[in-house]
Amino acid sequence: MSELDLLRAFRLDPPAHPWLKVGPGHDCAILSWEQGRDLAYKIDQIVEGTHFLLEGSEAAAPRRVGWKAVAKAASDIAATGFAPVAAVVAVNLRRNLSDAFALELHAGISACCRKYRIALAGGDLTASASAVSVCVSLLGQGAASSAWLRNGARPGDWLLVTGDLGGSRGGKHLDFEPRLAEAQALRTFDAQSPKSFVHACIDITDGLARDVGHLCQESDCGVELDADALPIAAAAHEAAQRDGRSVLDHVLGDGEDFELLLAVEPAAAARLQINWKHATKLTRIGTFLPASEGRVVKRSNGRTEPLPDVGYEHLTHEV
Amino acid sequence: MSELDLLRAFRLDPPAHPWLKVGPGHDCAILSWEQGRDLAYKIDQIVEGTHFLLEGSEAAAPRRVGWKAVAKAASDIAATGFAPVAAVVAVNLRRNLSDAFALELHAGISACCRKYRIALAGGDLTASASAVSVCVSLLGQGAASSAWLRNGARPGDWLLVTGDLGGSRGGKHLDFEPRLAEAQALRTFDAQSPKSFVHACIDITDGLARDVGHLCQESDCGVELDADALPIAAAAHEAAQRDGRSVLDHVLGDGEDFELLLAVEPAAAARLQINWKHATKLTRIGTFLPASEGRVVKRSNGRTEPLPDVGYEHLTHEV
Repeated sequence: MSELDLLRAFRLDPPAHPWLKVGPGHDCAILSWEQGRDLAYKIDQIVEGTHFLLEGSEAAAPRRVGWKAVAKAASDIAATGFAPVAAVVAVNLRRNLSDAFALELHAGISACCRKYRIALAGGDLTASASAVSVCVSLLGQGAASSAWLRNGARPGDWLLVTGDLGGSRGGKHLDFEPRLAEAQALRTFDAQSPKSFVHACIDITDGLARDVGHLCQESDCGVELDADALPIAAAAHEAAQRDGRSVLDHVLGDGEDFELLLAVEPAAAARLQINWKHATKLTRIGTFLPASEGRVVKRSNGRTEPLPDVGYEHLTHEV
Repeated sequence: MSELDLLRAFRLDPPAHPWLKVGPGHDCAILSWEQGRDLAYKIDQIVEGTHFLLEGSEAAAPRRVGWKAVAKAASDIAATGFAPVAAVVAVNLRRNLSDAFALELHAGISACCRKYRIALAGGDLTASASAVSVCVSLLGQGAASSAWLRNGARPGDWLLVTGDLGGSRGGKHLDFEPRLAEAQALRTFDAQSPKSFVHACIDITDGLARDVGHLCQESDCGVELDADALPIAAAAHEAAQRDGRSVLDHVLGDGEDFELLLAVEPAAAARLQINWKHATKLTRIGTFLPASEGRVVKRSNGRTEPLPDVGYEHLTHEV
């Protein structure tokens, strides 16, 4: 079974509609709707055994599973800079689970919707013999042709990231806050400016190295990442202590950070560094380069090395 | 594990949004969008072992599984009388499946989207150890406040149904055509009329008896079904021959017919009986009554008996 073949099939010549502005290959599809507004449209699933465990030492409480399912899709809406509106949710339960499990799962779904003012508009429930899965579709909205995509980064753009990176598996991957407020703060930071200074954005699911790679690939750019500038989560140090791998490995490859990775026009990025007031930090971690200069990490000693292809093997792909 | 408890949780006080006009409890959620238009929003999943089999004598080819996943969600859009616009699809594959399987599954998804002019806008792929599932979200659109819901039937309305009923498991449940064209023909039949003559609609998934029951429940009506008028699929006769149960049992209970069941204002329904030109037949199978008169079936001998609570136990529920 090759997911990549299926990915290619989804991306190659998908059935279109006159209202579809952006199809497979970005964090959300974008549809034109009423004059002046676009829709962001997303589906995302989390599956027991791949995205969460219900047994063993890393077992997640069902409430956290429900939260994660909605927050993960909301993180993709945040990556477009749009605001979420409504969710529909399909839950597949195992027949042997308790009432309390189902209700706690729902409570987590509902809590995330409430916190981010997302209408829980409908759903579908199945009970089967197989693994628990929660599939969430989200609708968001924003000004026409203003969605951040993956393909707009230009050489010279600064690479910024929200929050801290690495060690998400220690707990953050279940409890994270989608960066919706941060995205709105970025959109309104320069409200007078006629054009967005955010040229491209992605949320970190596969890991910093791979998701930077996605931005470079889609934008036809290279990048230099500054290892000393990376914002390191305490959980990344803990993970490194546990498994003996380097902290940098964890920051580059752990994935499911659900932070926003942004390509920002340099003058605006410099203003952001001075005037950014949001509680969540925003850190410059590198610079986009011409594609011919490749993708590299600059280490403390001043030497650069190729950006390693490390990432979280969660066996899931957006199309 | 009680799905009904979870259903109640979903329906009770779901997080709302000012744009949400109709939430859980109907075939689709309805959102107000631009002036004069509403959105229909839906999620639906099919799971191996519950909605299709991949092994044994009833094994479905993956192409038919992909078709069914989209068509089933499109059938819910048809039940609102809206037109579909775009789909996003989450596929969960088993790791041991072949490339050919994945590509054929995608071909079925794509074929249904193409036929019904639905943009295949994006997706999510997971490979896991568990059962294959395909989860489809659909967006549709129609005139503001014109969506058919389940709660508008009135005593005196005629109960109409498209197509033939029963025996769907013989194959139709995989290959059916969602009744989108029929819904549009109904909407344009009386285009001058300021108000819709379709008072309520549902697509038959649980089986005729249960889905009539849903219309009665939501509309606070009773109903008299005319057993002699029921349009019987050839497959219902075949199923009855195979298992020795009555043809009527199959027509009332088999489910997954994916036909539209409509409550229609009597004068318009009479005009429809004369002037309906669509290739798919439209049959009067009963009349709505005051709730106090209950839900009954009139048999050939003129006697009435209570509508039996028979239905397809597919262990899935819309919320």
